[in-house]
Amino acid sequence: MWPALQNDTFLRACLRQSTTHTPIWLMRQAGRYLPEYKATREKAGNSFMGLATNPQYATDVTLQPLDRYPLDAAILFSDILTVPDAMGLGLSFGAGEGPRFARPVRDEAAVAALQSPDLNKLRYVFDAVTSIRKALNGRVPLIGFSGSPWTLASYMVEGAGSDDYRLIKTMLYSRPDLMHRILAVNAQAVTAYLNAQIDAGAQAVMIFDSWGGVLADGAFQRFSLDYTRQVVAGLTREKDGARVPVIVFTKGGGPWLQDIAACGADVVGLDWTVNLGAARAAVGSKVALQGNLDPSVLFAPPEAIAREGVAVLDSFGRPQRADGGWDGHIFNLGHGISQYTPPDHVAALCEAVHAHSRLQRAAA
Amino acid sequence: MWPALQNDTFLRACLRQSTTHTPIWLMRQAGRYLPEYKATREKAGNSFMGLATNPQYATDVTLQPLDRYPLDAAILFSDILTVPDAMGLGLSFGAGEGPRFARPVRDEAAVAALQSPDLNKLRYVFDAVTSIRKALNGRVPLIGFSGSPWTLASYMVEGAGSDDYRLIKTMLYSRPDLMHRILAVNAQAVTAYLNAQIDAGAQAVMIFDSWGGVLADGAFQRFSLDYTRQVVAGLTREKDGARVPVIVFTKGGGPWLQDIAACGADVVGLDWTVNLGAARAAVGSKVALQGNLDPSVLFAPPEAIAREGVAVLDSFGRPQRADGGWDGHIFNLGHGISQYTPPDHVAALCEAVHAHSRLQRAAA
Repeated sequence: MWPALQNDTFLRACLRQSTTHTPIWLMRQAGRYLPEYKATREKAGNSFMGLATNPQYATDVTLQPLDRYPLDAAILFSDILTVPDAMGLGLSFGAGEGPRFARPVRDEAAVAALQSPDLNKLRYVFDAVTSIRKALNGRVPLIGFSGSPWTLASYMVEGAGSDDYRLIKTMLYSRPDLMHRILAVNAQAVTAYLNAQIDAGAQAVMIFDSWGGVLADGAFQRFSLDYTRQVVAGLTREKDGARVPVIVFTKGGGPWLQDIAACGADVVGLDWTVNLGAARAAVGSKVALQGNLDPSVLFAPPEAIAREGVAVLDSFGRPQRADGGWDGHIFNLGHGISQYTPPDHVAALCEAVHAHSRLQRAAA
Repeated sequence: MWPALQNDTFLRACLRQSTTHTPIWLMRQAGRYLPEYKATREKAGNSFMGLATNPQYATDVTLQPLDRYPLDAAILFSDILTVPDAMGLGLSFGAGEGPRFARPVRDEAAVAALQSPDLNKLRYVFDAVTSIRKALNGRVPLIGFSGSPWTLASYMVEGAGSDDYRLIKTMLYSRPDLMHRILAVNAQAVTAYLNAQIDAGAQAVMIFDSWGGVLADGAFQRFSLDYTRQVVAGLTREKDGARVPVIVFTKGGGPWLQDIAACGADVVGLDWTVNLGAARAAVGSKVALQGNLDPSVLFAPPEAIAREGVAVLDSFGRPQRADGGWDGHIFNLGHGISQYTPPDHVAALCEAVHAHSRLQRAAA
């Protein structure tokens, strides 16, 4: 049904299988740092959701970075807030502002009314997945994604981005029953949403727990990771005879690496505060690791970018272990790429990662 | 020369000596959540620096929380940006905005011109320290403080607070020589500044590495911790026959706990993402630990606050070890108290911490 995959390096690294080089992709690789992205966005009325809700535009921008750089994976162009929007919370993006919900979930009545959304309202996402998978024509695998139950909840309660998470943390500590009810609905919704993306053609899925790191130790485990684990347990893990890897990324999750690595995911995403070598020693025999270059390195000249990229690869070390087995590393940034990144700098990074990771494997 | 200290619990905990209860103080305990603070600030022309540069006002606001709550330490009322201001960078606080420097340090010429400031320009800080120490009259010890070399540098280069630290990270990765020169000047300045606070009467000092956590693994050690270590090595550690404890607090420093605990400080401050029990097991035989309640807990009702405060104490465990020796814990928040905190809630926290920590010691 789908064209054969020509580059399965990313999927193999996710599953801790042998690879000829370390695969690389970048969070938010289809984005504002690319002039061609801005041009497509202009066509879509200069609207983020205008891009995301139109499968053809979403396909176009998803493929743009692949035409520039030898990236080893594509990721669906969409937003993590599509699910709460489909729940009826009224998502909008003000000019120059972040996302905002017209109807945030802050009281007992709003929590009681909350339901997992009708997936038909998210049809544009699944249509985009299928359209992108077709357009990729087997070049690289396609990653689908969702926000984690906690991260979605933080927007749903705060109504927008927040500096201090005062509203949701007040609910968490004052009315944990309401918090758990929201998270249970979100876990159910995210599970169905990701499974529908897998049905539509996603070959791996990633759960972004972008705001897990704002929680206290203990609260993170109860209010974020427990629900991420529920999602992972409910996912379709095999499709068309292939394993569908699951990546869990918690920004600021370094202190909880052991817990996160035990949540059932195949891959744990790491931000740049984590020492990759230490992380591999701690959990590398259970999960593959994804990350973790500071996106700000891409503001530096190409030589510095190559040096820092190599340092990340060397921190992980040769993926093949002394016993002949393989640990998995997927090169990525520790967070989304900045809109201020010079596009040429990304090319320098891809080249350095591919070249040095081949050398690592050759120096056996 | 100074009145005898009536409550040395905080200093004893810093030095890992026996205590009758776990001492508590709160970062930014003199602040906007207190109506009496706002009243004094009105008198000072509603200006933060108007308070900080007037030793009498600084004394008044420093003592206000002590009159409300049974806190075990006082902390100098001041700002971390006094040092770069004295370097001539032109500090201002716009209405409703954060701090801003008129002359940020962004190019080779500005870096070359940078010098450790004339301490006479910071006389108002040392006068405030002496005035507060006198006014305390031995009630509790007085903590002096400074920003870390890296944290000061981040404001000096960015010129203001930042979301992405683009300017300073560009410098760090592109021109590490310039970055190291700024940090060397800052380390010298912070050392002299803290020693002058100790001379003026500070009985402990704290280094706030508020932005260390934005650095990548490796970069943190080279561009933040190495310079904090230089500062710690240059500090007066004994004054009037008493040890002057040094506290180092890195927001987001959880992944580097072992490194930070080896920097020469007596106490390591922890934010709420760190498991206190695990931190104690890792470094509790070398340093005391300070922290780490999520400040957002103080938005919850008093019963929830007491429960979460007790959970922090229980996570650390009984300070007295099975071998009879003592590990040190100073209760604090994991970050500054929010301006939206109801003042009564702080009283509930102090009471719970004092009561439960006495019970912990009794249950021998």
